[in-house]
Amino acid sequence: MSKQLPLVAMDVCCAPLAREPLTQDQAVELSALFKALADPVRLRLLSLIASHAGGEACVCDLTDAFDLTGPTISHHLKVLRESGLITGDRRGTWIYYRVHPEVLARLSAVLTTTGEAVTA
Amino acid sequence: MSKQLPLVAMDVCCAPLAREPLTQDQAVELSALFKALADPVRLRLLSLIASHAGGEACVCDLTDAFDLTGPTISHHLKVLRESGLITGDRRGTWIYYRVHPEVLARLSAVLTTTGEAVTA
Repeated sequence: MSKQLPLVAMDVCCAPLAREPLTQDQAVELSALFKALADPVRLRLLSLIASHAGGEACVCDLTDAFDLTGPTISHHLKVLRESGLITGDRRGTWIYYRVHPEVLARLSAVLTTTGEAVTA
Repeated sequence: MSKQLPLVAMDVCCAPLAREPLTQDQAVELSALFKALADPVRLRLLSLIASHAGGEACVCDLTDAFDLTGPTISHHLKVLRESGLITGDRRGTWIYYRVHPEVLARLSAVLTTTGEAVTA
């Protein structure tokens, strides 16, 4: 099924950075996810998907926000999917994208410095 | 003073991705920070500094964990400093590094999906 998590995302760890040092393997896994986030277009796509009504969006909902070609947007969506940050589910004509909240939550937890609620 | 935050870090925003879409400017700022995190050596350095006794570490505390040359470690520390994720404070022979907890906390908040506490 298209909703299956890539291995990299299933393995996402870790205790907060401020609590204990990362191992080499943990750092390699996490860096792949941060690399997927290290692009303005991908961050905007992720935020558009995550904040979209119903928590999902198709390409048809996303392209208007960008002055980019369809293939470029598809490339960035593919990077986000392969990283495990989002899933894609084909229904009829469109692929509907959702974030993996557990992957985002784990990244958030790694970066937290207090162990308490962190709100913007 | 060496503790002054770089502009990119002072401007770090934002509401959680799942709450509202990022603007282009916000996405550019955040992507620069995620790019600094998108490297296993830098993630391990950050975790070693953040979890070190007293919340600070000098290069002398960091090099043993890596099979890397001093200049390579210094390069990665420079990237972390320039991003605003850490500060460096020279005292005597050594520069002592600390994380900027507010920068990590803001990144954590951007990625949170619940608005509640996120713990590993």
